[in-house]
Amino acid sequence: MKKIGVVLSGCGVYDGSEIHEAVLTLLAIDRQGCEAVCMAPAVGFAVTDHLVNRETGEKRSVLVESARIARGNIRDIKEVKAAELDAIIFPGGFGAAKNLCDFASKGAAASVNPDVARLIKEMAVAGKPIGAICIAPTLVAAVLGKEYSPLVTIGTDAGTAAEIEKTGAKHQKCPVTEFVVDAQHKVVTTPAYMLATRISEAAEGIDKCVREVVKLM
Amino acid sequence: MKKIGVVLSGCGVYDGSEIHEAVLTLLAIDRQGCEAVCMAPAVGFAVTDHLVNRETGEKRSVLVESARIARGNIRDIKEVKAAELDAIIFPGGFGAAKNLCDFASKGAAASVNPDVARLIKEMAVAGKPIGAICIAPTLVAAVLGKEYSPLVTIGTDAGTAAEIEKTGAKHQKCPVTEFVVDAQHKVVTTPAYMLATRISEAAEGIDKCVREVVKLM
Repeated sequence: MKKIGVVLSGCGVYDGSEIHEAVLTLLAIDRQGCEAVCMAPAVGFAVTDHLVNRETGEKRSVLVESARIARGNIRDIKEVKAAELDAIIFPGGFGAAKNLCDFASKGAAASVNPDVARLIKEMAVAGKPIGAICIAPTLVAAVLGKEYSPLVTIGTDAGTAAEIEKTGAKHQKCPVTEFVVDAQHKVVTTPAYMLATRISEAAEGIDKCVREVVKLM
Repeated sequence: MKKIGVVLSGCGVYDGSEIHEAVLTLLAIDRQGCEAVCMAPAVGFAVTDHLVNRETGEKRSVLVESARIARGNIRDIKEVKAAELDAIIFPGGFGAAKNLCDFASKGAAASVNPDVARLIKEMAVAGKPIGAICIAPTLVAAVLGKEYSPLVTIGTDAGTAAEIEKTGAKHQKCPVTEFVVDAQHKVVTTPAYMLATRISEAAEGIDKCVREVVKLM
């Protein structure tokens, strides 16, 4: 069974992985007959109260909270190598831009969690597909932009698109139910909740994105 | 647009709502062209570390953590009346049996959160459909078992089924991709992660359960 890494960044749209996107990714992977290998970095993050969208001052662990989405079946990304995987996918949520890198505050000047950066580079060197959803394409741009200039989408947000292009990556507008593929670099991206107003819209784009990742494996 | 209440019990299979089940319920509701009205009680619960499946001694709020699944769009169940809803659905996860009632420790002698019990009774009196997933049918049995003897399923677990029958409710075995309907009492149940070994199995049963709830509205 082909293995697709799913890199989580916590559990909740404002301070971790966007939960719907993560679950819809797991569903699409399973429906393609592949195995999802969930992983996250064992680092701390600042908690946001999702009822009022305000930081609480509390710290939690990205790995421990991500384990909620993975039903406990999750690994420290530090221990995962590209050689074990056939592809990798990054769901969105602010965690992708705050916990896996600091793109949310630094834009194109973002630094990326060293294990996340290592794994993305390993996948690129091995010619294995990389999927990224919602805001997570910023992570791919931050790691691969300068060397590979991959083509990605985050939907239509001009400010984010401009920061992506500063990394050397290219941005293409895309509607929520579609995806953008860079066939040369095997990078597949879809806007999901950067644009979605309904969960079924996000589901359609994510399902197509995962199918394309599988096709490129 | 028809409104379907979704009662959450936290965010994570071991101490709250089973996240996959909750998200798949929201997806199925949206695909039926209905609006999900997420709600949860504003009560505390004991946190389980999902990486190691052990209680940490920490307390969090069911409403605040449930807001992660609802992307902030959630109400205190105390303020929700059956008159606003066309149906109600309870996803599973241990939260349904530990935070919405204490069935997990007390079995048929369980007491139920007063607002949850009130809303279930209001729905039954109004003749509006009630869906329950995974372990959540125990909640419906605890509230309605004595008066209505509804027919429900939690899959095949004999011990849980026996406790359900002690409440006065009836239990019927059911495979993961199917559902059980009590057309008289408009109660629809499906086993999901009581039996599922893959997310796509849970998705199939939940989708059918939600469609049946919509049909009964």
